[in-house]
Amino acid sequence: MKDFKRNLTMLCDYYELTMSNGYFNSGMKDKIVYFDVFYRDNPDGGGFAIAAGLEQIVEYINDLRFDDEDIEYLRGKNCFSEEFLTYLKDFKFTGDIWAIPEGTVVFPSEPLMTVRAPVIEAQFIETYILMMINHQSLIATKAARITRAAKGRAVSEFGSRRAQGADAAILGARAAYIGGVNSTACAIADEAYGVPAGGTMAHSWVQMFDSEYEAFKTYCEIYPNNPTLLIDTFNVIDSGVPNAIRVFKEMGITKCAVRLDSGDITYLTKKIRKMLDEAGLTECRIVVSNSLDEYIIRELIRQGAEVDAFGVGERLITAKSDPVFGGVYKVCAIENADGTVKPKIKISENVGKITTPHFKKVYRLRGRDTGKAEADLLCVYDETVDDTKPLEIFDPQHTWKRKTLENFTATELLVPIFKNGVQVYELPTIEEIRAHCREEIEGMWDEVRRFTNPHNYYVDLSEKLWQIKHDMISEFRNKKTKNG
Amino acid sequence: MKDFKRNLTMLCDYYELTMSNGYFNSGMKDKIVYFDVFYRDNPDGGGFAIAAGLEQIVEYINDLRFDDEDIEYLRGKNCFSEEFLTYLKDFKFTGDIWAIPEGTVVFPSEPLMTVRAPVIEAQFIETYILMMINHQSLIATKAARITRAAKGRAVSEFGSRRAQGADAAILGARAAYIGGVNSTACAIADEAYGVPAGGTMAHSWVQMFDSEYEAFKTYCEIYPNNPTLLIDTFNVIDSGVPNAIRVFKEMGITKCAVRLDSGDITYLTKKIRKMLDEAGLTECRIVVSNSLDEYIIRELIRQGAEVDAFGVGERLITAKSDPVFGGVYKVCAIENADGTVKPKIKISENVGKITTPHFKKVYRLRGRDTGKAEADLLCVYDETVDDTKPLEIFDPQHTWKRKTLENFTATELLVPIFKNGVQVYELPTIEEIRAHCREEIEGMWDEVRRFTNPHNYYVDLSEKLWQIKHDMISEFRNKKTKNG
Repeated sequence: MKDFKRNLTMLCDYYELTMSNGYFNSGMKDKIVYFDVFYRDNPDGGGFAIAAGLEQIVEYINDLRFDDEDIEYLRGKNCFSEEFLTYLKDFKFTGDIWAIPEGTVVFPSEPLMTVRAPVIEAQFIETYILMMINHQSLIATKAARITRAAKGRAVSEFGSRRAQGADAAILGARAAYIGGVNSTACAIADEAYGVPAGGTMAHSWVQMFDSEYEAFKTYCEIYPNNPTLLIDTFNVIDSGVPNAIRVFKEMGITKCAVRLDSGDITYLTKKIRKMLDEAGLTECRIVVSNSLDEYIIRELIRQGAEVDAFGVGERLITAKSDPVFGGVYKVCAIENADGTVKPKIKISENVGKITTPHFKKVYRLRGRDTGKAEADLLCVYDETVDDTKPLEIFDPQHTWKRKTLENFTATELLVPIFKNGVQVYELPTIEEIRAHCREEIEGMWDEVRRFTNPHNYYVDLSEKLWQIKHDMISEFRNKKTKNG
Repeated sequence: MKDFKRNLTMLCDYYELTMSNGYFNSGMKDKIVYFDVFYRDNPDGGGFAIAAGLEQIVEYINDLRFDDEDIEYLRGKNCFSEEFLTYLKDFKFTGDIWAIPEGTVVFPSEPLMTVRAPVIEAQFIETYILMMINHQSLIATKAARITRAAKGRAVSEFGSRRAQGADAAILGARAAYIGGVNSTACAIADEAYGVPAGGTMAHSWVQMFDSEYEAFKTYCEIYPNNPTLLIDTFNVIDSGVPNAIRVFKEMGITKCAVRLDSGDITYLTKKIRKMLDEAGLTECRIVVSNSLDEYIIRELIRQGAEVDAFGVGERLITAKSDPVFGGVYKVCAIENADGTVKPKIKISENVGKITTPHFKKVYRLRGRDTGKAEADLLCVYDETVDDTKPLEIFDPQHTWKRKTLENFTATELLVPIFKNGVQVYELPTIEEIRAHCREEIEGMWDEVRRFTNPHNYYVDLSEKLWQIKHDMISEFRNKKTKNG
């Protein structure tokens, strides 16, 4: 596949550079630190999100390098030491990364990725990692909602023209495919990432001919194999459908489709279906588009709209109803000189912004009989869950809410991606990621999959981890005015 | 400046390709067609938008080329003729483009760009042009709102981590700078586009040290020149501010800043200001961030928050409150064999979706004394407005609403960008574009600049253009069932 990538090492917040220079010049550059990527709220008030973006992060890490021009640019800013600039010339990532694979269902407050590296390396990659996870997880999550609303009907992504830039169009199409759409209109996403692309005609095609009939006829002569005709350039019922039927009949085409891009979809598609069926075109599919999202699609189906496939543009490619996935990158531990791991916490007056300290494992606990996910459990890195024995889990806020799991499986979600700077993870194909995503969503209870007021899926802490966090908060509260 | 661009010829909707192949194989490829780019509604219910994205379109047009790999990819789709694929090998743009320069205030329904070219060329470039104008105009418009709300206080864009992909971060920073922000956190946007980048520290910097005091002290030793300290890692009032004051005083730093990224901004900044002033640090600036936008900034100022500068992230870089700029690309005319221009219209049951036909000029009419914009006027390409004589303009919907302008200037907004495929427009620098944008906004009446219920600025049609449009609609209504 064609490679359209650029070296985006310099796509970083400037403070990654000022901090890096600071660590370098204060002799801290070899200090090992652990960062977690996690998010706080599911988009659109949903019950979960879909992790995506890892493949591009792997490419970015493998590609990291400062070119001479970059060094020259930085030198011109007059705030970086020459020693630091020399260090950047051979800069590469030498640390470890663990991540939850793409297409996996994930929940707020659990690490989607953990980075362990010398502090400059770990800090520097923050911006790009967050941007990539935030963007693609946002779109994959939205696509999973929209395709669920479509209840098995095909969904095509075609929002490139309203995407927030080229990568939003291209990687947005990739993420949408992971989340469940069947195809994209974006040709380069097919060429570069294997997302199946398709498309037929715009209104301009129809307008270029002297009549709609002639436009349709010419199109079907060139594409007699399953053509889709756009029927709303002039008037759907009086002109578009009759002309489409006439052309399909004249040419003996039975496998075909009409597309409607405006108007009252439920009303019109019922009329269109009747007209097509009466003309014997029972196999002719009806494709609709026009500012659709999961809410409108669900409502159209409820109203009995006769729709075989949906085209979804701007509201998917920008995740319009909630266009920010709020992943953050927070220090969770540092390593002492003797190699022991020292947990770190960020305290906030806002309780929701207090981080969960330490280098952690993430377990997903599933019922052995049902296969359904029951809860996730965060443990300290040196703990192991034994799923052959009963396990008591508890609500980390209301610790008296307790539950004992039996007959369950415990699967670790974070898998090694880089070890000592070397990629140790084999990237799955996009079809594998997409299939994984489908299985993952099927592995959730209906209550978690609901659009409105979904069940709150628990991400619990092990006793040990909870105690460490609790002690760190208490210690801070006791000495807060003495800090410094 | 460093060039991070890629060839994005293949970033197109697949239907651009199927239509192109269709035009090619039906002998229509040399037909000359005119397309307009226009949009229908101002973002956020505002009174206007800011045009942006032209520079990247110029680069794209100059760069258009199908590589062998692209042709190979298309061949594999089994729906394009070999003759068409051969034609694509030497494909380039040979037509004309007119556009409204970047940074200009624009209004719904007027052409921001007009393309005149052989139909395949004109059609093919649709997706990229729309994407670029839609994205950058969206962000420039949002940035103009946010900076107006800040009333002269500095605004920094720092949303890269929440941007919808790399281009959203990079070109989003560019567009935000055009719209009025003072700086960005995105380093590559500085290196590639000259948007001034800056940044200081994250919470992780503070956490990497044994104490907040030590973190601040180390930072100020490395950056004694106007350092900004992040004061909310633990507790703002009990720890952050006292430690910042202690370090500034110990080091004799008076030109400095503190940054607050959480909590009750109005309450805290008033307390912080008082503490700083009492310590004699009257020059220490207070920078705030945390999910800001124009509404929150306006409210903070109204409440008397003591803020010197705002950092704006996700709500600017995604234009969160209204993240889609709905620019469209519509046929407005074709050329007959004899070179005469034949207007084209797209009719819709939805009146707002009926296009304004013909190859057009756009005039901005300004009061000669006030310098303020009074209305825009769309004319047929062969009309000229004489601003030495009174001009009667009228509401195109309610044609009895009429007004005679005297003592005005008429300026054409669309300027030639390409002529016969050759760039004839000298791209302004980003500083020139930004200055132009500031002047443009100053040239609007306060009533148009309001956030809420702004005055409806008129985009009128000339008598001649109005009549042509009216006749075409009437003609269509009379024959609609006979079409085809």
